[in-house]
Amino acid sequence: MMAREHLIDVARTVYRSYGFAPIDTPALEYAEVLLGKGGEESDKQVFRFTDQGDREVAMRFDLTVPLARFVAQHIQELGVPFRRYHIGPVWRGERPARGRFREFLQCDFDTIGTLSNSADIETLFVINDLFERIGIQRFTIRVNNRKVLNGLLEKCGLQEHAAGILRSLDKLDKIGRDAVIAEMIEKVGIPESSAAQVLDMAQLKGTPQEILQALEGMLAGSPTGERGLHDLQELFAAVGACGWPASRVSLDVSIARGLDYYTGTIYETLLGELPEIGSVCSGGRYDNLADLFTAQQLPGVGASLGLDRMLAALEDLGLVQKATTPAPVLVTMFDAARVSDYLQMGRALRRAGIATEVYPEAKNIGKQMKYADRKGFQVALIAGEEEFAAGQWQVKDLRNGTQDSIVSTDVVRQVSKLLAEPPW
Amino acid sequence: MMAREHLIDVARTVYRSYGFAPIDTPALEYAEVLLGKGGEESDKQVFRFTDQGDREVAMRFDLTVPLARFVAQHIQELGVPFRRYHIGPVWRGERPARGRFREFLQCDFDTIGTLSNSADIETLFVINDLFERIGIQRFTIRVNNRKVLNGLLEKCGLQEHAAGILRSLDKLDKIGRDAVIAEMIEKVGIPESSAAQVLDMAQLKGTPQEILQALEGMLAGSPTGERGLHDLQELFAAVGACGWPASRVSLDVSIARGLDYYTGTIYETLLGELPEIGSVCSGGRYDNLADLFTAQQLPGVGASLGLDRMLAALEDLGLVQKATTPAPVLVTMFDAARVSDYLQMGRALRRAGIATEVYPEAKNIGKQMKYADRKGFQVALIAGEEEFAAGQWQVKDLRNGTQDSIVSTDVVRQVSKLLAEPPW
Repeated sequence: MMAREHLIDVARTVYRSYGFAPIDTPALEYAEVLLGKGGEESDKQVFRFTDQGDREVAMRFDLTVPLARFVAQHIQELGVPFRRYHIGPVWRGERPARGRFREFLQCDFDTIGTLSNSADIETLFVINDLFERIGIQRFTIRVNNRKVLNGLLEKCGLQEHAAGILRSLDKLDKIGRDAVIAEMIEKVGIPESSAAQVLDMAQLKGTPQEILQALEGMLAGSPTGERGLHDLQELFAAVGACGWPASRVSLDVSIARGLDYYTGTIYETLLGELPEIGSVCSGGRYDNLADLFTAQQLPGVGASLGLDRMLAALEDLGLVQKATTPAPVLVTMFDAARVSDYLQMGRALRRAGIATEVYPEAKNIGKQMKYADRKGFQVALIAGEEEFAAGQWQVKDLRNGTQDSIVSTDVVRQVSKLLAEPPW
Repeated sequence: MMAREHLIDVARTVYRSYGFAPIDTPALEYAEVLLGKGGEESDKQVFRFTDQGDREVAMRFDLTVPLARFVAQHIQELGVPFRRYHIGPVWRGERPARGRFREFLQCDFDTIGTLSNSADIETLFVINDLFERIGIQRFTIRVNNRKVLNGLLEKCGLQEHAAGILRSLDKLDKIGRDAVIAEMIEKVGIPESSAAQVLDMAQLKGTPQEILQALEGMLAGSPTGERGLHDLQELFAAVGACGWPASRVSLDVSIARGLDYYTGTIYETLLGELPEIGSVCSGGRYDNLADLFTAQQLPGVGASLGLDRMLAALEDLGLVQKATTPAPVLVTMFDAARVSDYLQMGRALRRAGIATEVYPEAKNIGKQMKYADRKGFQVALIAGEEEFAAGQWQVKDLRNGTQDSIVSTDVVRQVSKLLAEPPW
């Protein structure tokens, strides 16, 4: 839970640093708001019931449908651009598995009400800052723009086959180029030459600049394709100004997330050390957030940090602290009659910004030290009759076992010093 | 929502500074865990349903029952003392009213598994630090100990009438001394002399020291009463060492919160400017947290910050910021072709720790300024063709309207300086 709170803190700090404001919506919505929004499978998983007032209600299964309802209801007061983040639990009545629970946290941010590519570029910046702040050294944000493939299909007159083509293309990693082409010819019913063109584009490899150059020829003459290409060019120019490692942002024309939802830029994020767990932060641009709730066109762009998956990854990478206490310092208790002195030492340390727990009972010191060890405290303070008489405390560094007698008035300074240094 | 997040942040920081660790439990528990725990009224308000796996489940109506279930289940691994905080939503199917919602946040902290009065004193310290950190100047923590009245009843041989006596006593403010005595004689069936003794004690007025002294005589000979008195004496001695204003902690023998639950120290917190809204942070010591879930005796002490009531109070006191953006700085956009330059200015400010929003479209400056004003930004940065050519930015202090041309490389320093100063 401490690791989870830390991740949430990082996400909030990054989102806020870009001007995204927090919102929250109720766990329960009217059932009609949630049903029919995520497809049949999603409807089956919704927890729903009739409440005490005979209302049909349901627990939210994601944060996007509540956002759509909220924005549709309040956009006049909110104004655009509206930037919000929302971190909260959602519920799905499905079979739990590793990293997949009936209740889990979503951690979304979105910019609503602007078509500007500037918001797309900032979405990428936010994703970058998230992982830098979490402390991940190597990660890659894979970017694409749905308009690129749509442009090619427009050029070939194959727009109406887009869904089928994307479904086949999605299998590229699994079944290979030839099988995908075969499927496009047989199942989707497009000519072999078009299928080959689609594959040529999806399989473009190289630096973003090389791929962008290759796309120029492939998309020339398609307004949709040229718009997508322009947005990607602008995005990679802005990335170039950031001075990031070359591997930080890649262009991958084959990715196509969220078949029906995303319409422009799309993002996936892979961890350098754990690419096999899949994308830990994904998102994209959509044309219309809330068409089921309002006639007003509300385009937007956003992404979602996969908190549970990220937490599992941090555990695998050994980046989760072992301590189960948020306080680095334990004040042990020797003499119950002097409780006020122990408590005042705790107060003095807290005033200096050092979280401190005071052990509440004068148990034998062995038991208190075992408690300190189990919880992962870093420093223990010890004072009995002798120390109080001498106006001193024993300050013990639990990380390396060293112990010193320190004059009472100097304890806070000494503990600060110890905690600021590595323990060797 | 920003004010709410700020309050939650303060609570977490204070709880953690005492070594309380966060826990979370699922919104849904098996119905049998929740039902029958809060009385008939509470059972009626529980949201419950049968889930996809035919399990009877219910949404938690408080954080105490889930804590009891959690501790009973895990106390062997957790060990004692176990200090946890839990901040999360709970649900009750009741009629909403001002400051009373079907979904609301609870914000609890508890020390489980120790009988030590040290934990009671620290509970008081935590409450104090909460309000100091929230920025409340004047507040009073009213303390009592249930053992004091119980001791008097023990002396008078009236223990079995405790519940009735407390119920009558609870009406003291409303109906006055004589009516309470009359009720105790008629309804509870105790002698007038005993009723008068109870009232004499409950109506003790004065400094904590004066009241403690008066109690010594009243409770002499009752082991329960003497234990309660000792704990209060130790608590007020520890308070004396804190150097707080005299009005900070009062002793009020008449308060009796949580009739059946609390057994020792009890706490209420009143705001100096708004006493009429009632206690905004209450709690106490209990003998057994989880008797319905485990045979193990689990005494504890804790309290709960009333977040929604506190938020309403902060609004009434004008202590809630008006801004709806978490970022103080807005970078406006003049020339869409230079999007990367605007975005890089945002990055430079964020690297200096200054949250910054970049307006995503090159709309006319009037519209952007109106946006800045509505959201409550403090500083706006402006650059068009002329500024870019001169290597400068216009830095506008939106709080007082002053505006300066600043060399690009100096903008971050200048904005930091502006934000650090009051705007006059």
